[in-house]
Amino acid sequence: MGPDLTIAEVRLTPVLVADPPLLNTQGVHQPYTPRLIVEIVTADGVSGVGETYGDTAYLALARPLAEALAGSRVCDVNALPALAARVCGDPPEVTSADAVDAGGLRGAQTAGKLRLSVVSAFEVACLDALGKALGLPVHALLGGRVRDEVDYSAYLFYRWTGHPGGAGEPDDWGAALDPAGIVAQARRFVREHGFTSFKLKGGVFPPDQEVAAIRALADAFPGRPLRLDPNGAWSVETSLKVAGELDGVLEYLEDPTGSTAGMAEVAAGTDMPLATNMCVTRFAEIPEAFRRGAVQVVLSDHHYWGGLLATRELAAVCRTFGVGLSMHSNTHLGISLAAMTHVAAVVPNLDHACDSHYPWQTEDVITERHVFEDGRLAVSDLPGLGVELDRDRLARLHRRWLDDDGSLRDRDDAAAMRAAEPDWSPGRW
Amino acid sequence: MGPDLTIAEVRLTPVLVADPPLLNTQGVHQPYTPRLIVEIVTADGVSGVGETYGDTAYLALARPLAEALAGSRVCDVNALPALAARVCGDPPEVTSADAVDAGGLRGAQTAGKLRLSVVSAFEVACLDALGKALGLPVHALLGGRVRDEVDYSAYLFYRWTGHPGGAGEPDDWGAALDPAGIVAQARRFVREHGFTSFKLKGGVFPPDQEVAAIRALADAFPGRPLRLDPNGAWSVETSLKVAGELDGVLEYLEDPTGSTAGMAEVAAGTDMPLATNMCVTRFAEIPEAFRRGAVQVVLSDHHYWGGLLATRELAAVCRTFGVGLSMHSNTHLGISLAAMTHVAAVVPNLDHACDSHYPWQTEDVITERHVFEDGRLAVSDLPGLGVELDRDRLARLHRRWLDDDGSLRDRDDAAAMRAAEPDWSPGRW
Repeated sequence: MGPDLTIAEVRLTPVLVADPPLLNTQGVHQPYTPRLIVEIVTADGVSGVGETYGDTAYLALARPLAEALAGSRVCDVNALPALAARVCGDPPEVTSADAVDAGGLRGAQTAGKLRLSVVSAFEVACLDALGKALGLPVHALLGGRVRDEVDYSAYLFYRWTGHPGGAGEPDDWGAALDPAGIVAQARRFVREHGFTSFKLKGGVFPPDQEVAAIRALADAFPGRPLRLDPNGAWSVETSLKVAGELDGVLEYLEDPTGSTAGMAEVAAGTDMPLATNMCVTRFAEIPEAFRRGAVQVVLSDHHYWGGLLATRELAAVCRTFGVGLSMHSNTHLGISLAAMTHVAAVVPNLDHACDSHYPWQTEDVITERHVFEDGRLAVSDLPGLGVELDRDRLARLHRRWLDDDGSLRDRDDAAAMRAAEPDWSPGRW
Repeated sequence: MGPDLTIAEVRLTPVLVADPPLLNTQGVHQPYTPRLIVEIVTADGVSGVGETYGDTAYLALARPLAEALAGSRVCDVNALPALAARVCGDPPEVTSADAVDAGGLRGAQTAGKLRLSVVSAFEVACLDALGKALGLPVHALLGGRVRDEVDYSAYLFYRWTGHPGGAGEPDDWGAALDPAGIVAQARRFVREHGFTSFKLKGGVFPPDQEVAAIRALADAFPGRPLRLDPNGAWSVETSLKVAGELDGVLEYLEDPTGSTAGMAEVAAGTDMPLATNMCVTRFAEIPEAFRRGAVQVVLSDHHYWGGLLATRELAAVCRTFGVGLSMHSNTHLGISLAAMTHVAAVVPNLDHACDSHYPWQTEDVITERHVFEDGRLAVSDLPGLGVELDRDRLARLHRRWLDDDGSLRDRDDAAAMRAAEPDWSPGRW
């Protein structure tokens, strides 16, 4: 009885996705960014999709996992982390507490974390296939949604008009390099997507300029939740100064400084809640951070944490210890946005609107792009994730990856920045 | 597409189940103990079962929840806790940190805890129905099993030959009131079920006698994991003395003393791991207990914690903080044993054999009783829990509940004890 849930085939398709010239403390987004699309097909021919980082280190881990998976069942996702640990091998560990990878601002890159980011795409693809095979949405496979819609915030970036040398895909957003530019960007986000909360990616300009941008947003959108995220670019002293200046203006301050110890120092000196997706990015980092009171909001990310079930567990840990929960985003496509929305829908303690880069991505690999209404996504009740792969689009973005000479296959925002400004180094204040 | 998962009917059947004269620090088990069987039937006529405590306070909460549930779907179990909080009303809270209910040794009884124990039976019944409707075992609905078998320990009790006045159902176990009696009981458990670890319910006799029983077990079963559980009957001083005497003999000491503060004091003075199902029985109790290092092993119980998904979350919290995990049992039938086995099968960090009273229960409401082999239960791959309700057996045990004059409908081990020894009071050492 029931469908045959055995995994018959796993397809890995690396793609390069157009990305605007968004600025952050590590540099600028490349014209194209690598993502990996994972397709898992059951013996009955039902197909599920997942998505994760596509840099070569991730691909190297995904390939043996894909091979090892044939014969497993799409319902057996709990077995994925141990299987990955067994078959994937370990890339070199970077264990410094302050380590940040060049491109992704993904916190310290350890073998375990890379593996979990890969596992997440396989888990999501399994759950998508399982849902499609059973006629159930992914949220129902996670115990059912506790909300009908998920709030997202506008993700504001300092940006250039275009990439250096006219590379990449042009857009009509123009530059945003000062408070007026950020407010204009925010207004367009509101107009097009209805967002009611705003996050500014900081760490680009000296803090005073970013504080001014936040104040301009507060003036333009009175009473709306605002956040500022300099990705750890500030000293403890600077963090405390900004926290004081923006007291009562920000909903929370995100990763003002780059280590758990530093965050704890900042937290001890301010009432401003601190959020993180850099010093708490895996379960092993939680005890110290919570014990020291270093973070008041954990920004979950199902890629980092190993999938949707693990994200649910992270939510439970945060709930138990009275720590807030919201959701982090890196550049992603519609598959991951669907996954984010399903897991956000089942977690009772989602305390803040989720981040998403999605509005910046003009390309996708699904047939119908997600549409925000009033800054929200409706939780899909269609089987699986509720999205369908568009094979033509996928093929086109994969062709771009195949045609690349290797220079874009590993995201490196610093290198992209130095192509424009050879003497650039990350700002630290 | 897919089955109709709408809940069409919820049936509540309180039963009285034969229970031997097992002794604990609160008295003696009644001749019959109340349990509540929850049946949830979908619009397609698929039926799922759950089981929980059957005392009148639980019944009073279960009835409005059953009524409120019609029209929901069996896949929407995440909504159960909030629904229960909304419709069940609050029984009086007992908030003293040291409070223990008379019968169940279930830790402090709060409205929230009672509700969660009721919710657990509804959640399990929903998952059983969902699994049966989809053709999937419950463990697959929880992400799939990571082990094929679950270890259980022999649950040894001081006991009388029979209940006072010849009440209840006779058995051929005889009395066990000294070390030789406990060892004989253990030998029979090994012979009949193959258990390879042993837990002695203590708090009945002065600690020296119970220490002697543990030593006799250690002699009889060298190298086998042993545990002693006096249910909080000892002072900190006594706990430390016993911990010293049984250092290297016990796998862990369970609830030697009755509060988080006391457990923390004991833990500070010994290397003996301390386990609990009394001072950590809900998520709100975790932060203090973990911060103070009061417990090294949490004994999970899906009834207490609100179901199988919550138990999985508890396991994640324990794993994150490096605290061990095992499983508690109160008197239960085969439905709960199936549920315990499914959730135990999906949790990677199940560090110790689970407890179960099941071998003491000669009666059941399922068609085929579970069989331990080498002290283990195989994890069922049948749809749902893998058990079927035996309607004749259920009707017989429900008839007993109907015929009862009310004296057994609320488990009260102290009252049962005082029926034999009117001047009895709980031993405290």
